Amino acid sequence: MNERLTISVDAMGGDAAPEMVVEGVDIASASHPAIHFLLFGDERRLRPLLDRLPKARAASTLRHTEEVVGNDAKPSVALRVARGSSMRLAIEAVRAGEAGAVVSAGNTGALMAMAKFVFKTLPGITRPAIAAVWPSRRGDVLMLDLGANVECDAQNLVQFAVMGEVIARVMLGKTRPTIGLLNVGSEDLKGVDAVREAAAVLRASPLAECFQGFVEGNDITKGVVDVVVTDGFTGNVAIKTAEGTVHMIVHALGEGFRSSLAAKLGYLLARPAFERFRSWIDPRRYNGAVLVGLNGITVKSHGGTDAIGFAHALGVAIDMLANRFNEKIKEELELIDLKGEKTSPAQAV
Amino acid sequence: MNERLTISVDAMGGDAAPEMVVEGVDIASASHPAIHFLLFGDERRLRPLLDRLPKARAASTLRHTEEVVGNDAKPSVALRVARGSSMRLAIEAVRAGEAGAVVSAGNTGALMAMAKFVFKTLPGITRPAIAAVWPSRRGDVLMLDLGANVECDAQNLVQFAVMGEVIARVMLGKTRPTIGLLNVGSEDLKGVDAVREAAAVLRASPLAECFQGFVEGNDITKGVVDVVVTDGFTGNVAIKTAEGTVHMIVHALGEGFRSSLAAKLGYLLARPAFERFRSWIDPRRYNGAVLVGLNGITVKSHGGTDAIGFAHALGVAIDMLANRFNEKIKEELELIDLKGEKTSPAQAV
Repeated sequence: MNERLTISVDAMGGDAAPEMVVEGVDIASASHPAIHFLLFGDERRLRPLLDRLPKARAASTLRHTEEVVGNDAKPSVALRVARGSSMRLAIEAVRAGEAGAVVSAGNTGALMAMAKFVFKTLPGITRPAIAAVWPSRRGDVLMLDLGANVECDAQNLVQFAVMGEVIARVMLGKTRPTIGLLNVGSEDLKGVDAVREAAAVLRASPLAECFQGFVEGNDITKGVVDVVVTDGFTGNVAIKTAEGTVHMIVHALGEGFRSSLAAKLGYLLARPAFERFRSWIDPRRYNGAVLVGLNGITVKSHGGTDAIGFAHALGVAIDMLANRFNEKIKEELELIDLKGEKTSPAQAV
Repeated sequence: MNERLTISVDAMGGDAAPEMVVEGVDIASASHPAIHFLLFGDERRLRPLLDRLPKARAASTLRHTEEVVGNDAKPSVALRVARGSSMRLAIEAVRAGEAGAVVSAGNTGALMAMAKFVFKTLPGITRPAIAAVWPSRRGDVLMLDLGANVECDAQNLVQFAVMGEVIARVMLGKTRPTIGLLNVGSEDLKGVDAVREAAAVLRASPLAECFQGFVEGNDITKGVVDVVVTDGFTGNVAIKTAEGTVHMIVHALGEGFRSSLAAKLGYLLARPAFERFRSWIDPRRYNGAVLVGLNGITVKSHGGTDAIGFAHALGVAIDMLANRFNEKIKEELELIDLKGEKTSPAQAV
C-alpha cells in the first residue's frame, strides 16, 4: 500500500456506523479510483457489508478491532482505556506510515485527544484547531477554531490564521485567501485583548497583505473574507447557530409549501430552483472538519451524517493528502514569527 | 403629560432619521392611541414631517435640539461632548420624570454610555446588558447579552439570567420562562470557567426550576429554552451570524425563484406561504433591543430600520412600561443572591 494513496478509516464511529461508513467508502471509491481505504472495525459486521458493495470491497483492506469509543466517552478516559479501539488504531496506522490521513465520525473530543497524543502538534504550533468550510454569498468560507480550544490567546489566534490561510488554498482553491478576525462591533470596546493583540501581530507579519482586519458575525455569510479566525468557544457557537438557523428556515419553508394546494403546485414548478438551493446549503456538502496543527492529517465527520456526507469527509482527507497540506503548513510556519517577537538584526547581534 | 404613558424619542438617530422616526411614531400612535411621544430633534426638519402626518402630530410634543450624535462617534467622546444632543436629552427626559422610557436608533455605544451615566444601574446589577428577541421553531426566544460586555464573569451571567427571566415574562408573555446558558459541546472542556460557575450559582438559586443548564448554538433556533444567556462577545457574534444566515438564504431563494419562468410561476402560486415565511423572519418584527439593568427603560432600534421597524421598537418600550418592567426586576433581584454567597442562618447569627 502506498501511504500517499491510503486513507485510514474508523469504521465504527458515527450514529449509523458501520453501514454508512462502508457505503461512504463505496461512493468515494467510485470518484477516487486510485485511493485505497484501510478500515478499522468489527470484522463480523464489516465483512457482510463489504460483500454487498464490490467497489468498496475492491478498494479496502479490513483490520479487525473489538473495541469502540463510545459517543459519551470522556476524551481523557478514551485516551487511557480505548487503546485497541477502531478510532485509536486508525490513527496509529497514519503514524506507522500505512496511511496518509485518518477519517472518523466518532466522538470529537476523543478523536482530538488521541490524534494529539499520537501525532503531536506541528513544530511551532501550540494548539491544534478544528477547521471547516461554510457557504457564503461569495463562495465557500473557511472557519476555525470550531471548538478545540474554549479559550485562546493572541498567539493561538495567529497560528490559526497561518493554518487557515494554507487550508483555504487547499480546500477552497484560492491562490491568495483573505483572512479576518471575528470580533464585535461596539466601537469603544472592540474585542477582547487576545483578538486585538492577534490583529497587531498579523498586521506586522508576512500575512499582512491577506489580513483584512476584524469581521463581524454577519460578515461570515457575506463572504467578506475567505478565512474567519476565532477562538473555539465563539466559533463553535457561531457555526452551530448558523446550522440551527438553516434548519429552522428549511423547516419553515417546507411547512409553507405544504400549507395549501396552490403552494404545493408552486413548489412543483419552482422545484429545480428549490433543489439547487437545498443542495447548496446541504450540510453533507460541508461535512469533514479538519483537525489542523497536528503532525498527521485528521478529518472529523459529523456523527449524524449519512453515506453521502461521509464520502464527502473522505474527499476532504484525500484533498489534504494530495495537496501535501501539512508540508505546506510547515513551510508557512517557517516564514512567520508566531510569537510576535521580531528578531531584528540589532537583536541578532 | 403622564410619565407612565409617555415615550421619549431620539428623533435624529438612525440612517433614515428623522423621516423614518416620525413615520414610525405615526404607525405606533395608531396602535397605541393612549401613548404620548416626546420627540427630540431639529425642529426645522421635524415640524414639516409632523405637518404631513396628523396622527403623529396629535400624539407628539416636539423639543428642539441642535446637536446629533454621529454614527461613528466614540461613546466616551459622545458622553463628554454631546450634552445637548437629541439622544442625551431624550434620555434626560426619562430621568426628569417626563417620560417612562426612551427609544433611539442612534449609535449603540453612545446610547449605552449615556443611559448608563444618566440612569445608573439598578441596585444589585453590576453591568447592564443588551437583550433582544429572536425567532425559533417553538416561538420567540430572548437572548442576552448581545454586545454590551465583551467579557463577563459568572456574577454578570447570573444577573443576565435574572433579568432575562423577567424580560421573557414581559416580552414573550411566558409565565415561567426557561433559561439556558450558552456553551459548547466538547465534553471534557465544557465551557469556560465563568459559564460553569454561573451554572452552579443558578442551580442553587430560586431560579433553579427555570434553569435548564447548558444549551448550544443550534438550540437557540430549536427553541429549547425561552432565555439564552451569554457574554456580549459570543452573543453579538451569534445574533449577527444568525442574521447573516437569514439574509444569505432569503437572497438565494429570491435568486432561485427568478431563475426560470416555471420558478417565477411557482413563486406566484406559493406566494402567500412565502410571504408568511418572510414576515415571520422579518428583522423589523424583532427590532427593539432592550438595554437592561439600568434605572430607566432604554430601547435601541436597529440603525438601518424603516418606519415599520421603528414602530416595533416603540412598541417594545410601551410593553416594558405597561408591564412595570424595572419594578419587576427589582423585586426579583431581592429574592436572589447574585453574588452566589449563601446567607445561611448560621452566618446571620
